[in-house]
Amino acid sequence: MDAYHELETTFRRHSALRAAASMLQWDNSTMMPENSGDARGEQLAALSEVSHEMITHPKLADLFAKAESQISTLDDWQQANLREMKRAWHHQTAVPAELVSALTKACHESELFWRKARKENNFKAFLPYQEKVLSLVRESAEAKAAAMNLSPYDALLDQYDPGTTSVAIDTIFDDLAIFLPDFISKVIDKQSKEPAPLELHGPFPAATQKALGKTMMQKLGFDFTRGRLDESAHPFCGGVPGDVRLTTRYNEEDFLSGFFGVMHETGHALYEMGLPAKWRNQPVGEARGMAFHESQSLLSEMQLSISLDFLEYATPLMREAFGQTLNISGAEWSSENIYKTMTRVQPSLIRVDADEATYPAHVILRYRLEKQMIAGTLAVKDLPDAWRSGMQQLLGITPDSDSNGCMQDVHWPDGAFGYFPTYTLGAMIAAQLMDSIKNSIPDLGAQIRKGNFQQLSEWLGKNIHSQGSRFSSPDLLKHATGKNLDSAVYKKHLKNRYLA
Amino acid sequence: MDAYHELETTFRRHSALRAAASMLQWDNSTMMPENSGDARGEQLAALSEVSHEMITHPKLADLFAKAESQISTLDDWQQANLREMKRAWHHQTAVPAELVSALTKACHESELFWRKARKENNFKAFLPYQEKVLSLVRESAEAKAAAMNLSPYDALLDQYDPGTTSVAIDTIFDDLAIFLPDFISKVIDKQSKEPAPLELHGPFPAATQKALGKTMMQKLGFDFTRGRLDESAHPFCGGVPGDVRLTTRYNEEDFLSGFFGVMHETGHALYEMGLPAKWRNQPVGEARGMAFHESQSLLSEMQLSISLDFLEYATPLMREAFGQTLNISGAEWSSENIYKTMTRVQPSLIRVDADEATYPAHVILRYRLEKQMIAGTLAVKDLPDAWRSGMQQLLGITPDSDSNGCMQDVHWPDGAFGYFPTYTLGAMIAAQLMDSIKNSIPDLGAQIRKGNFQQLSEWLGKNIHSQGSRFSSPDLLKHATGKNLDSAVYKKHLKNRYLA
Repeated sequence: MDAYHELETTFRRHSALRAAASMLQWDNSTMMPENSGDARGEQLAALSEVSHEMITHPKLADLFAKAESQISTLDDWQQANLREMKRAWHHQTAVPAELVSALTKACHESELFWRKARKENNFKAFLPYQEKVLSLVRESAEAKAAAMNLSPYDALLDQYDPGTTSVAIDTIFDDLAIFLPDFISKVIDKQSKEPAPLELHGPFPAATQKALGKTMMQKLGFDFTRGRLDESAHPFCGGVPGDVRLTTRYNEEDFLSGFFGVMHETGHALYEMGLPAKWRNQPVGEARGMAFHESQSLLSEMQLSISLDFLEYATPLMREAFGQTLNISGAEWSSENIYKTMTRVQPSLIRVDADEATYPAHVILRYRLEKQMIAGTLAVKDLPDAWRSGMQQLLGITPDSDSNGCMQDVHWPDGAFGYFPTYTLGAMIAAQLMDSIKNSIPDLGAQIRKGNFQQLSEWLGKNIHSQGSRFSSPDLLKHATGKNLDSAVYKKHLKNRYLA
Repeated sequence: MDAYHELETTFRRHSALRAAASMLQWDNSTMMPENSGDARGEQLAALSEVSHEMITHPKLADLFAKAESQISTLDDWQQANLREMKRAWHHQTAVPAELVSALTKACHESELFWRKARKENNFKAFLPYQEKVLSLVRESAEAKAAAMNLSPYDALLDQYDPGTTSVAIDTIFDDLAIFLPDFISKVIDKQSKEPAPLELHGPFPAATQKALGKTMMQKLGFDFTRGRLDESAHPFCGGVPGDVRLTTRYNEEDFLSGFFGVMHETGHALYEMGLPAKWRNQPVGEARGMAFHESQSLLSEMQLSISLDFLEYATPLMREAFGQTLNISGAEWSSENIYKTMTRVQPSLIRVDADEATYPAHVILRYRLEKQMIAGTLAVKDLPDAWRSGMQQLLGITPDSDSNGCMQDVHWPDGAFGYFPTYTLGAMIAAQLMDSIKNSIPDLGAQIRKGNFQQLSEWLGKNIHSQGSRFSSPDLLKHATGKNLDSAVYKKHLKNRYLA
């Protein structure tokens, strides 16, 4: 077997073992009895050890060298696969084993302590934990940077959004940071002059929510012969491309957040389901990073579902479903009111509760702060002050506590630096994709109003899903839309939706 | 690390990977979407390859030699663990890799073709498949026999019931084979003179059956913080000791078979749950083979649940559960009638439908035939005739077709020779254990009538469950009951139940 195919064999097995772990993690969150965590921990640890050893085996360096010397014999997908295998290999081998295990341990302790410290609003007690994590993350970032010829922050970013650089993000985010404060205040001013949206009153039976969610998923193209919908405390899209396990939760007092939550996760699911089957279990067959993954969920949630066209189709279905048990004749059950409810803007302290318009400000703040922390120009002890002044600058509000400020997210306690920007990059990619889709499907709005999503699905399948990790993240966007990520498109979307 | 502990480390990881596979197999049967089998197949194949390579690694021979030379430094559990690791290693390494893969392939093809041939009652077409499987099984058996210093049939038996020999089984089964025909005709004669049991009429709602089943499982000691009850086409007890996944199916027209099915599986589950936690993920921490596993399910089903004492406790609970929707005032809802229903004897062609008294005859027939096939004294082409004459001799009936005769079970098409005797050995062990339990808990009947199973559970926990694979199968029975497997005890149980 030649070197390239030997690598494929190793990575195929590696991927199948990671797939097994992914299924077990889904089971953890949905099915596992409460005291079985110890047994599950042993299973996941063994899977992770074995798959790590497989990729860090000394013979791989030689195989990569040989395969790269024969690169002209490979077709373009194989070349891309070789590049992606190498990338995965760098991330697993660049950092010395002792540093990996020190970081894993520090993150575990830090996350545990963070839960307590956040509850008690005690940043000072948490400080040494976060400092230790940051110091080890910086060390890892430097090791990866050296191996991959990237800056340390970009080496972290490469784990989540391959090919995107902080230089590119800076330009885009700086532009948004200038745009947002004035935009947000204009939106608030506009909305304050209009009557407030009407509240929908439940109870909304969980079984009805579930049936409606499944109908919508199916309509959008979710294949229930290759996936399931279950419940978990924190909704997620898990499983593997051939067996997608989506979860949600049902609040019988609040139906809309659950409904659009399912639409969000369905976007993730359709991406996984549409990945190239031929390359399943190879790195090039995987989704192209977290920014693109988020773009698919936000395209489904923010671009498609939260639109008057879609709600003209979906609201009657909601009324039909809940009309069995509720009076649905009031104006609160109009598509216009639901649209209004879902597009209400209000600056707030907590990112996960933020609306579409203020969300990017939360992300830009975190991106700027973590980049400085990785560069060593912001010490963890100075984070609370920097957070407060950033919030004031971007959103005009100041947190009442660190728990509602710099300690609100699990990412940093957990060592996940470089992840935050993907949320807003995803939102921008979604807007840019939708812009292109509307250009190539002129009557898209009419199709959506009739509940016909086929051409939309085909466009995404052809231009994004089936491309796997063939291109870098910026190249994939350029292939799909003909241009680089352009904040103008995103700003246009926001202005059209909120100020038109 | 010394050789013994290095082996422990290898086997711990091996066991954790097999545990992961076991969870995924449960998911296959209960949760997996219908078209996700391809992805699951890749995951299970990777797990099986990796764990096989781990155990067949060349370094293990050396580690075993070293560990055995230092055996005096090990305590008795460690010595037993070393013995069990070696046994597992023999079964995985004794057979050349090409033969293993040829056998796997032959069994797969044979099982597929058997499904078709059984439907069409076409033994002749199936013959070459079964011949090929038998020939490869015989070759494997000889390889294992040479490595383990056992006869070929005993080497197969050792996979399912370690320590039991065909010489020992011959004595016991020959004795039973003499006893059974006369016994069965006396039972039939006796029962024909009594009024037939009354039928229970449903429908029995699945939700009620499930709630009642869970109540009974909990009563018997099933820990729902470390296990679940779900549905599958074929009920089984799956998962791992710390996370037991039991399944059943609900027939709304027939409640009793499902109820006692759950009692049966609960016996398996309690064994798994009671295995020594300290030795989890080591071979010595596993259940002691299939005969003992079946003894635990049959003790729960046949010895405990199908008894007037138990039914005096359980029947009021059944009446309470189904009384919500059914008229439960008739005589058919008495514990006596249910007992009578569950102890009705009638020779029949199909093993899986057989009653307690005729079941052993089905097993003895299969044991005798498969032993001859492995010895080479019975050719597959002569199986249908041998089957018919054996059925006539043991049960006084002759199958109308090979589908209802020698082609009814999946075991031989699937290459599982040496498994059949464990069913009846399990039934005999169960009777012998219950006999000892009654001696050591004189008021057991009174306890059971009150639904108090604690002392019974403690006895099983102490004498069987917590012993894992510390002893061979015959030694475990001797430790627990003070004597070897004794067909007299089993015959006494049958005579007491059916002829007293």
